[in-house]
Amino acid sequence: MNANQRIALDVMGGDSAPACNLDGALLAAERGLPPERLLLVGNEDVIQSSLEERGGNPGFDVLNATEVIGMDEKPGVALRAKPNSSINVATGAVKMGAAGAHVSMGNTGAVVGAATVGLKTLPGVRRPGIAVTLELTGQPVTILDMGANVVPKPEHLLQYGYMGSVLTRDVLKGGDENAAPKVGLLNIGEEPSKGTDLLRAAHGLLTDSKLNFVGNVEGGDIFKGVADVVVTDGFTGNVVLKLLEDFSGFMLQLVMGELQTHGAQWGPEALGNVRKAIDYSEYGGALLLGVNGIVVIGHGRSDASAVANAIDLAKRALDADVNGHIVRGLEA
Amino acid sequence: MNANQRIALDVMGGDSAPACNLDGALLAAERGLPPERLLLVGNEDVIQSSLEERGGNPGFDVLNATEVIGMDEKPGVALRAKPNSSINVATGAVKMGAAGAHVSMGNTGAVVGAATVGLKTLPGVRRPGIAVTLELTGQPVTILDMGANVVPKPEHLLQYGYMGSVLTRDVLKGGDENAAPKVGLLNIGEEPSKGTDLLRAAHGLLTDSKLNFVGNVEGGDIFKGVADVVVTDGFTGNVVLKLLEDFSGFMLQLVMGELQTHGAQWGPEALGNVRKAIDYSEYGGALLLGVNGIVVIGHGRSDASAVANAIDLAKRALDADVNGHIVRGLEA
Repeated sequence: MNANQRIALDVMGGDSAPACNLDGALLAAERGLPPERLLLVGNEDVIQSSLEERGGNPGFDVLNATEVIGMDEKPGVALRAKPNSSINVATGAVKMGAAGAHVSMGNTGAVVGAATVGLKTLPGVRRPGIAVTLELTGQPVTILDMGANVVPKPEHLLQYGYMGSVLTRDVLKGGDENAAPKVGLLNIGEEPSKGTDLLRAAHGLLTDSKLNFVGNVEGGDIFKGVADVVVTDGFTGNVVLKLLEDFSGFMLQLVMGELQTHGAQWGPEALGNVRKAIDYSEYGGALLLGVNGIVVIGHGRSDASAVANAIDLAKRALDADVNGHIVRGLEA
Repeated sequence: MNANQRIALDVMGGDSAPACNLDGALLAAERGLPPERLLLVGNEDVIQSSLEERGGNPGFDVLNATEVIGMDEKPGVALRAKPNSSINVATGAVKMGAAGAHVSMGNTGAVVGAATVGLKTLPGVRRPGIAVTLELTGQPVTILDMGANVVPKPEHLLQYGYMGSVLTRDVLKGGDENAAPKVGLLNIGEEPSKGTDLLRAAHGLLTDSKLNFVGNVEGGDIFKGVADVVVTDGFTGNVVLKLLEDFSGFMLQLVMGELQTHGAQWGPEALGNVRKAIDYSEYGGALLLGVNGIVVIGHGRSDASAVANAIDLAKRALDADVNGHIVRGLEA
């Protein structure tokens, strides 16, 4: 195995680090990931002793990182002040080819900042974007950008269409080369004239591209199978994602309250499948697309299962050579 | 009663017009609205004969309008091509002082366009905005703008804060003069530096204002009582509203499916209170704030109850003299 097929896991990132990450790594191994594909990055003593408590290290490599960037630290400041943080060390491992992917449940801004500065963009890519995949309807729908690029240019949105399309075809839909994922542009109406100058210009670029562009889509179309990829600016994408997360939790509370007044005999676990459908950590978190390496950003609240899913997403992206396909697609 | 206390109802607008509107008018009268406060605008023959079928006209005035603007017509084109449309005639009634409010379930763009051009803005108001009030948590939360002003300037957002604040204090919270509604700015993080240039500038203006500004809020805060008024640009507001509408319907479907697999003995009506909580037509639809007249825009899908709620919202806005308070507030 090439070192660049390894996945560097930031053991120190996330609300319940390091436990959730170590449990997630062990779960990934249980599910069949060869342990040598994982490179655990963090305080070596803590990692080794914690693994001992969990029955031993099944064969993970460990890379020592003496500092930790907190979830609420200012990314730019923290990255400079803590060169030996797990996020910086894991990013450095990818930069040097000691790993091909970085998976972190830590400070999103710091992970994105470290990757953007340290890994640089892929040849041809103007700006990285964060892609989140939801599987609300059983079919994956990928939305990007989710916050890396708050004020994008039209060409950035075009490239997000390409990158989301490659991700959908090669990773989410199993590499069917004939698949032409449907790409939509998030807007407030169908007509090409709708929205802002940015969106009108992006609509033109997408129309002229080789993508399977289905035109403007509206927020609710995310649940209707209208598009496989929904392109948007990082501001709108971030608002949408946070709204979906919190609104789904809020609605489940309303529903459980209502059911109890009807004398329901079961508890919240009855709605487990609904919870699963709306929980994007089930799909492994977000991918930072467009940088020279695979970067998966999980939720700070991730549990072991979400961490294992994030690791699996990184593995699938590496195995499918998503970045190679992006570069070749943008050249064409 | 002054003529300018009357409410002009566009009988021809909405997916099930004229029936839903006539039933809604009758329901409003049943609920206690003096019939002489309603001015029914539309095809006079159709209105009178339809009222006959429903047991007679309880005392509504009728204003004939021979044309109808369809739900999918281009607003600008249709308004010019159909000067005798119910939307144009109802707007004209407000302009001439024959009514103080226009309530329509019709083509939103046409209602907004007619009001903006025909009624002009209130003294001191730079741009009108659409305010939608949700009562998800039992407390009203008003979001504006919902689509009238897709690319606003910072001063527009400041004024939306003022207008939303007046609406909350005078109509939604019963006119308590000491109430200082909490105003938040929809953004992707708490820090004043977050988001776009527009939002950073608006944050400064809101901070320096006399409003009870609570700072930046995120999408999910809408369900957390963090703010009574959430200020946003018309693009983001429109995306958010459509997302909430469709996502809530989608989630209820998921939940009902799940419950059936658990052998639930009841049907979809069990979740009636949840449906009610997420259905903004329960609160009377949207208000176009900042024009020289009260304009309520209901949902095209409105039923009689939603129409009656929209009429009631117009009545409360008139009775509270919302526009007078907005003008005096902006002067101060």
